[in-house]
Order: sequence, then C-alpha cells, then structure tokens
Amino acid sequence: MNQPDPTDRLDAFNAYRDRMNRRILEDDDHLGIKRFFNLDTAAYRDGALDGRTKELLGLVASMVLRCNDCIDYHLQQCVAAGWSDDELNDAMNVALVVGGSIVIPHLRHAVETIDMLRARAGDDT
Amino acid sequence: MNQPDPTDRLDAFNAYRDRMNRRILEDDDHLGIKRFFNLDTAAYRDGALDGRTKELLGLVASMVLRCNDCIDYHLQQCVAAGWSDDELNDAMNVALVVGGSIVIPHLRHAVETIDMLRARAGDDT
Amino acid sequence: MNQPDPTDRLDAFNAYRDRMNRRILEDDDHLGIKRFFNLDTAAYRDGALDGRTKELLGLVASMVLRCNDCIDYHLQQCVAAGWSDDELNDAMNVALVVGGSIVIPHLRHAVETIDMLRARAGDDT
Amino acid sequence: MNQPDPTDRLDAFNAYRDRMNRRILEDDDHLGIKRFFNLDTAAYRDGALDGRTKELLGLVASMVLRCNDCIDYHLQQCVAAGWSDDELNDAMNVALVVGGSIVIPHLRHAVETIDMLRARAGDDT
Amino acid sequence: MNQPDPTDRLDAFNAYRDRMNRRILEDDDHLGIKRFFNLDTAAYRDGALDGRTKELLGLVASMVLRCNDCIDYHLQQCVAAGWSDDELNDAMNVALVVGGSIVIPHLRHAVETIDMLRARAGDDT
Amino acid sequence: MNQPDPTDRLDAFNAYRDRMNRRILEDDDHLGIKRFFNLDTAAYRDGALDGRTKELLGLVASMVLRCNDCIDYHLQQCVAAGWSDDELNDAMNVALVVGGSIVIPHLRHAVETIDMLRARAGDDT
Repeated sequence: MNQPDPTDRLDAFNAYRDRMNRRILEDDDHLGIKRFFNLDTAAYRDGALDGRTKELLGLVASMVLRCNDCIDYHLQQCVAAGWSDDELNDAMNVALVVGGSIVIPHLRHAVETIDMLRARAGDDT
Repeated sequence: MNQPDPTDRLDAFNAYRDRMNRRILEDDDHLGIKRFFNLDTAAYRDGALDGRTKELLGLVASMVLRCNDCIDYHLQQCVAAGWSDDELNDAMNVALVVGGSIVIPHLRHAVETIDMLRARAGDDT
Repeated sequence: MNQPDPTDRLDAFNAYRDRMNRRILEDDDHLGIKRFFNLDTAAYRDGALDGRTKELLGLVASMVLRCNDCIDYHLQQCVAAGWSDDELNDAMNVALVVGGSIVIPHLRHAVETIDMLRARAGDDT
Repeated sequence: MNQPDPTDRLDAFNAYRDRMNRRILEDDDHLGIKRFFNLDTAAYRDGALDGRTKELLGLVASMVLRCNDCIDYHLQQCVAAGWSDDELNDAMNVALVVGGSIVIPHLRHAVETIDMLRARAGDDT
Repeated sequence: MNQPDPTDRLDAFNAYRDRMNRRILEDDDHLGIKRFFNLDTAAYRDGALDGRTKELLGLVASMVLRCNDCIDYHLQQCVAAGWSDDELNDAMNVALVVGGSIVIPHLRHAVETIDMLRARAGDDT
Repeated sequence: MNQPDPTDRLDAFNAYRDRMNRRILEDDDHLGIKRFFNLDTAAYRDGALDGRTKELLGLVASMVLRCNDCIDYHLQQCVAAGWSDDELNDAMNVALVVGGSIVIPHLRHAVETIDMLRARAGDDT
C-alpha cells in the first residue's frame, strides 16, 4: 500500500498560498483584485446549491483546466466536506472523460493529494 | 419577460447531433471512437455520485472549457434531472468565477438555452 | 477595396448581448453573477493604467483565448478610444505570435470587425 | 447513407478565408503578421517529415485546440494528400482521446467536412 | 556541446508515473477510469495508421496543449520508434506555429528530454 | 514585509532559458523554429505601439494562458521598461477578470517575481 508522508507538499503549498494571498491583499491593496478574491470565496458558500456540491464543481473545473494548485485547494475542501474516495473518483472520472488524457497527469497529482489528506486524517485519530 | 421560440436552435442542434453521431458510430465504425462514446455516456450514469450531480459537473466543465454544444447537451440533461434555475445559476456562477469573463458569452448562450427549455416544458402542460 | 455593410453582424451581436445581459442581471438576479459583471466593467476604467490601454489588454487577452464575441466587444471599445489601425495591428500581432496560427481565424474576424467599425464611422461624417 | 451538398459551407469558408487573408496581407501590410503567415505556410512543406504527415499533425493540433476553421483547412489538405477515411479516423481518435469529449462537437464537424470533400471528389469523376 | 545527465528527471517521472498509475488502476479500481486508461493505450497501437505516426500525433497534441508530462511520455515513445532529431524538430515546429510562443517553454523542455534520451541511448552502446 | 532572496529562481530560469535557447537555435538549426524565435523577438520592438506597451500585452496574454515562464520573462521586460507596481497590478487585474480564478496561482507567482525584481533593483543602488 501507498503511504505518503502527511507532512508534505500540501503544507508547503498552503503556506505559500497564505503568504502570497496576504502579500497580494494587504500590501498591494488593489480594489479590483481584492473584490475578485472575495467573489471567489463567496462562490463556494452555501446557496441554492450547498457549498459541498460547489466544491465538487470547483474540483472538476480545476481538473479540466489542468491547474494543480487549484486541484489541491478544492480537494482539501472536498475532503473536509466529507466526500468519499468513491465519490471523488466518480467526479474525477467526469473530468477525465470531458478533458481527455491530457488530464491524466493531474489525476495522478490529485490521487496523491487525496492519499496525503487521508493519511493526515489518520494521524488525527 | 423573455419568450423564446421553443421550436428552435435546440431542435436543430439535437437533430444534427443525432445524425452525425449515427454517421460516426454506424458508418465509420472505428472501435476506439465507439468505445470513447460509450465511456462518455457511462460517465454520467448513477454511481457513487448520482447521475444528476454528474450532469451538473459536466455542465460546469463544459462552461469553463467554453463549448456551447456541450453546454446545451448538459443543460438539457440538467433540466430533465430537475435542477432549478437557482441551482443552475449557482453552478454557472462557479464556472464564471473559475473561468473568468471569457465565459460570459457562454453564460448568455446557456441562459437562453434554459429559457428555451423552460418554455418548452411550459408547452407540455 | 473591401466595403463591408456597416449595418451588420455587429448590430446583431450588440442587441443580443444587451438583451441577454439584461435577462441575466435583471431577471435572474444572482448576486455572485451580478458582482462579476460589475467587476468586469470596473476592470477597464481609468486607474493606474488608463482605460484605453486596458481595452487593448482586453483585446489581446480575448484573441489568445480565441473568443470572437469578446474580440468584437473590445474592438468596439478600442476604436472608440481612438486606437489606429496600425496600433491595433501591432497589438494583434502580439496576440498572433503568443497564441499561434490557431489565432488566425480570429484575426480574420477581428479585421472584418475593424472594417465594419471604420465604415460605420465613415457613415457618421 | 449521408449525402451532403458538395456546394456548401466549405466553399463559403474558403472564399471568406481567401478574401480576408488578402485583406490582411495586402491592405494592412503589417510585416510581423505577413511573416507569421509565411512561417505558417512553410511549416507544412516537405522537409525531414513530408508535408503529408505534417498536415495530419496540423489536423490533430487543430482538433485538440478545437478550431473548426483550422480543422476544415487541414482536412482539405489531408484529403488532397491522399489520406484515407480509416487513416483520418485513426488520427481523429488520437485527438479525441488526448482532448476528451469536449472534442466531440469538432469530430462531428470534421466528419461532415470529410463527407463534403468525398462527395465533391465523386462529382469530379 | 550539451551533455545532460542520463540518470535524470526522466527516471523520476517514469517511476512516479508507474507508481501512481498502479495506485489508480489497482487500488481505486474505478471502472470508468480503468477503461479510459485502456482506451488511451489502444489509441497508439498500429491500425490504419502505424503506432509510430500516432506517437508523433500524440507529441504534437501534447505540445499545443502544453503538458510537459505528456510531452516526455510521447517523446520516449517517439525516440523508441526511431524518429530522428530532424523529424522531431519538424513535428515540434508544427506545434510551435500552431500553438505560438506560449509553446516555447515546452519546446525547451522537449529538447532537453530528447538530449537525455539520446545520451541514454549512447550509454547503451 | 516580504523579503524574497534576490538571487533566486529567476536566475535559474534565465540561465536555463539562455542555455536551451542556444541549444535550440545553434545546434538544432531548424529554419522554421529559428524564424519563429526571430518573429517572437520582433513582435515586442517599438512600432506603431511602443515596445513598453507591447510587453504589457505580452504579460497579460501570458497570464490568461497561464504560463509562468512566459510571465517571468515579460515581467522582467515590464519592470525594465519602467512600469510601476500599480500599473502592473492594473494589468494583472485585467488578466484575472478575463481569465478567472484559475489565473490566481499565476498571480501569486507573478507578484513573487515582481518582489524579486524590486529587491534586486534595490540591491543595485
């Protein structure tokens, strides 16, 4: 079985993401960019659709557009929202069929991220 | 209010789509292409995720990849699956935020398609 | 010489765009979508960069992403902002080199649109 | 069997393409754009790879990037270069697998174009 | 002359690719994903077009879609299939012209990969 | 405040870029590829638009197409051409709105690059 190190590239990504988002939102203080970030956050809040479903939509959109950082972000939200591996695989299968084999490297990345998140969750127990 | 003609570009699209799919699957009879079409159909069947949710994933993937034919196809499935306008708007909002203003022309197309589908449903009563 | 009809596909595009934008913003009234439209408009206002330069940026972004509706919208703004044909050609050349020959069909479309806009301006005199 | 009208959208596309290319290359006379067009033409000439193979590469690139005008252009060259339907299907299958179901609408378009070209060739006899 | 280390990022990529593919296909065991992987493999087998030509199509598709992992995979197949540097350059030139300067970083990556593969082949003698 | 190391990934990128460009242009000596590189350089020279504006166009095109190497290259040119942080933020905001949240990881990368370039410029004084 696969046992990825739970203290890993996800931590590095999250730290970099937080540091640069603060840098962009606090130092640069560009109104348009700030509003875009707010809009982005708001798009995944509970509404007519619940936030949980929206995170799954965000994951599939990130996969067909082939952005690993976006995939990692949405996978963390999806796992936190309680989506199971089987459900995530079903969603990623839609992304794979829509986006084609060019999505496969991102599927590998995504599955590795899921393993990291599950291992980390195991640590918590 | 908006009253699009329900006998419309959707009928033309569906007829063209059916005709060319038959042409591709029956006449050409290329095993790989045939299998791809089967895989595509299977990806939206009930599984760990229900088909209804998968159609919503297909819609968002089609919007961020900016394919009107794919949008029209998935919207027909989404409306048939019972997603409300508010829910579809929430999903399309995710697509808009992820994909940016370049998605707006496809949002206009999608909303027009939804209007056609709702008008058509009205006719059925 | 080329003499496109100035009463043309641009009028149809603008009418459709206005009608569907109203439909989306007034009837649907989805807060996230509404805010996105506002953000989109605001991005091209005078700021550290003048709106004129931003429209040129919007044009090049639309060309490399290959969206004819977006190209037509930004070209109308660019011509209204006073960019000359030589300047527009220089900007479109950047888009062509960055985006490759796949941009050529959109270059043809863009040049036809510019001709329509210049013919229309000629009518005004 | 399918009997598309051989006097068709391909004629319209070719006429538009010729007219606008002349407009761009002769009237506008932008050195960078001109050179790009020359480079584009040269890329498909016989070299280490023969032009025939390069047209097939151009077709697959056009399909995964989802540009119908580019597909129609390269299909005309591919058919003129003697590629059979089975060979074209094999190439398009690669494009479909790499690019995913989002390519399917362009596959439908491509197969219709091939039918037009074959019907036209039948007329010549 | 350029002398890249033949024990290199390609080994790391191949090991990661094998490990994650096994992880996806064996552990996850999702029927749709499995079938997609089979379809992907089958698309490059000898058929109406020989596998050698299909690998070249796969390379160009990967370059215009700008996926380094896919480029590395297909380059290994292309070199194994006997395509010469001049032929690969001709194919990559088509990708460059179709896809534009945005492809250049991937051309640099691809040429480095080819150097690694040629150095490795030299080791085998 | 943020204090990135000015001797950094930019140096590594520039060295790799120079080495591989020489490798491609000198060793491979493919006429089409060579001409493409020349055309690419020429597209940013002063013309009807000044080179400074063209670099900003190149930056926005690179952001919406999501290529970090291209972003780093054009940012170096933009900073050398004297664009201020506020002006660059305004341009990047256009890229963000056009391209959507999928551009955000590249915005983080770009802002980090700008910080590196400003720190480096500080060193020079």
